[in-house]
Amino acid sequence: MSSTAGQVICCKAAVAWEAGKPLVMEEVEVAPPQAMEVRLKILFTSLCHTDVYFWEAKGQTPLFPRIFGHEAGGIVESVGEGVTDLKPGDHVLPVFTGECKECRHCKSEESNMCDLLRINTDRGVMLNDGKSRFSIRGQPIYHFVGTSTFSEYTVVHVGCVAKINPAAPLDKVCVLSCGISTGLGATLNVAKPKKGSSVAIFGLGAVGLAAAEGARIAGASRIIGVDLNSNRFDEAKKFGVTEFVNPKDHNKPVQEVIAEMTNGGVDRSVECTGSVNAMISAFECVHDGWGVAVLVGVPNKDDSFKTHPMNVLNERTLKGTFFGNYKPRSDLPSVVEKYMNKELELEKFITHEVPFSEINKAFEYMLSGAGLRCIIRMGA
Amino acid sequence: MSSTAGQVICCKAAVAWEAGKPLVMEEVEVAPPQAMEVRLKILFTSLCHTDVYFWEAKGQTPLFPRIFGHEAGGIVESVGEGVTDLKPGDHVLPVFTGECKECRHCKSEESNMCDLLRINTDRGVMLNDGKSRFSIRGQPIYHFVGTSTFSEYTVVHVGCVAKINPAAPLDKVCVLSCGISTGLGATLNVAKPKKGSSVAIFGLGAVGLAAAEGARIAGASRIIGVDLNSNRFDEAKKFGVTEFVNPKDHNKPVQEVIAEMTNGGVDRSVECTGSVNAMISAFECVHDGWGVAVLVGVPNKDDSFKTHPMNVLNERTLKGTFFGNYKPRSDLPSVVEKYMNKELELEKFITHEVPFSEINKAFEYMLSGAGLRCIIRMGA
Repeated sequence: MSSTAGQVICCKAAVAWEAGKPLVMEEVEVAPPQAMEVRLKILFTSLCHTDVYFWEAKGQTPLFPRIFGHEAGGIVESVGEGVTDLKPGDHVLPVFTGECKECRHCKSEESNMCDLLRINTDRGVMLNDGKSRFSIRGQPIYHFVGTSTFSEYTVVHVGCVAKINPAAPLDKVCVLSCGISTGLGATLNVAKPKKGSSVAIFGLGAVGLAAAEGARIAGASRIIGVDLNSNRFDEAKKFGVTEFVNPKDHNKPVQEVIAEMTNGGVDRSVECTGSVNAMISAFECVHDGWGVAVLVGVPNKDDSFKTHPMNVLNERTLKGTFFGNYKPRSDLPSVVEKYMNKELELEKFITHEVPFSEINKAFEYMLSGAGLRCIIRMGA
Repeated sequence: MSSTAGQVICCKAAVAWEAGKPLVMEEVEVAPPQAMEVRLKILFTSLCHTDVYFWEAKGQTPLFPRIFGHEAGGIVESVGEGVTDLKPGDHVLPVFTGECKECRHCKSEESNMCDLLRINTDRGVMLNDGKSRFSIRGQPIYHFVGTSTFSEYTVVHVGCVAKINPAAPLDKVCVLSCGISTGLGATLNVAKPKKGSSVAIFGLGAVGLAAAEGARIAGASRIIGVDLNSNRFDEAKKFGVTEFVNPKDHNKPVQEVIAEMTNGGVDRSVECTGSVNAMISAFECVHDGWGVAVLVGVPNKDDSFKTHPMNVLNERTLKGTFFGNYKPRSDLPSVVEKYMNKELELEKFITHEVPFSEINKAFEYMLSGAGLRCIIRMGA
């Protein structure tokens, strides 16, 4: 039992007081974990688009002051009542969505959309008592997607914590908490390309490149990257992308360009932009008879996916995925092992690193489109 | 070698001289089979909606005079050059689509959409020489989908002929040539419901009831039939349908009605009407996380399938199928065996029977919506 167990911990956290304004480093009080909760010491966290999206709060209900952050690696400091499969000292990845192991989704082999702990971006409190575990001089600070990893200590539901190999370097595998697993799993778990097949990846950001990495691991022989920004093509080569298409360079729909390049269409496609037009192209560019298109990118509220039903009838498959269909507790440990046995390369996703005190730089890198992942070192 | 091999055969055929006009029983000359062709003596044929649809020729390019018919059972009379896996006397089912065994589709485990012999409703001639094998006093009579089974003898490409167990009664298994296999395979090969699961079937005609039969065989515990005609519900019970929904009885979309009945949606759905609204409902009524919707019904030319992309992102799957994903030559023999070992019941699909001379009655039954399949006995 650590000496802090059961006590309020005072530590540093980067607090978002207002939408779009730089985070402010504050001393926060972190309450002990309640039933089925775990308090974690975060060692490394990284910045994902979803943090920036909700920090900008353009379109969503704003919820401030809030502690963002959901890609991270840490160590269990203490556990609440009823927690039996984690103990202080365990190395873990907190995850923005959970696995209660009791609901129909958790019991289904096919789904990872836990009824109890599925991502909820509007909730800023813990499930157990509907309150926050963070406060500053008595003022509650909201949680974000149940993780709030931009804090030296945070409290997370046990269902949102994956226990991993303690030998894994947390400054690398922390990126598996969200985006990289999302793209990788979309390809490996859902699109499932066969060795020697062709795969089109729409959107060459971190998620799309992780999807390409999945295609490389699966042994795809042609990996066609599609992006409106041709500057991304050079970097994409490191992730196994063999050919590039910029839709702006063509005066016909990109699905027709891809069909011509591939004698009728690719075997698999993975859509990682969230643009509904890219979704339609990703579906229509797969080969009839066996093609599978997988949607990953999150659409706008009023979008409509439209296609001629014959495109479906001709034996194409359209699937969606959430967090790469990984169940956080059951499956993430094996993704970490893929990195440990050198099957999966993570270093190439990590393009920047900053000390915690300079976390706002990570926001600047992402807003300017520089690099893929910026690791934030909490100890510094 | 039969005595007729290599000779023109004169026999009776029911000829459609004009769109929508009763067929006329004629003496036709049937030329010998050319390279990779087989001449069949048809013993039993049945009438499918597709025959009626192209006979009415509302919307398609009319092609007359023509011999319709594509669900049938017969015996090989003689074979053309290069045909090695069929011989005179073999019991066979001719099929409206084919399997060349050489193209990418035939070599794919997933597709049955043969590049060479895929259904072509506009072609009225044989592939080998671009000519018809049927004539009346020198006037060519067009073929229909490569089968033209409304004739005592017909010529078919070897790739469109499934050799079956000679002990199988052709007056029953002839219905496996098209509609029944289409619905059955949509469920068994594509939707693949697990034992104990729930399945919604849209459209309770012969194809939809065959899809329900597939769900019954797979061990589904709830089979929900959806049809605008409540009169179909009683008959559907014979096919394992356990519950019924008539969308007209509700003032909300049928997908919402089904979601309420099933705690969030069915595990699988199969759409057999061809109405684009039914397709959308069939997709949206499957459960998030694991639901699979399979489209079977053929849409109109200008239809658009529309749904909010979040319905896909929430881990639903949309698939289309053609002829139940069965490869005609490789797979139909095993479907016949399912009937032989009493796993599959075919008798309940056969509601009428007429002698060949009264074939126009079969059209009347179908046009009035009476029954499911009418068997036409060629010998009579």
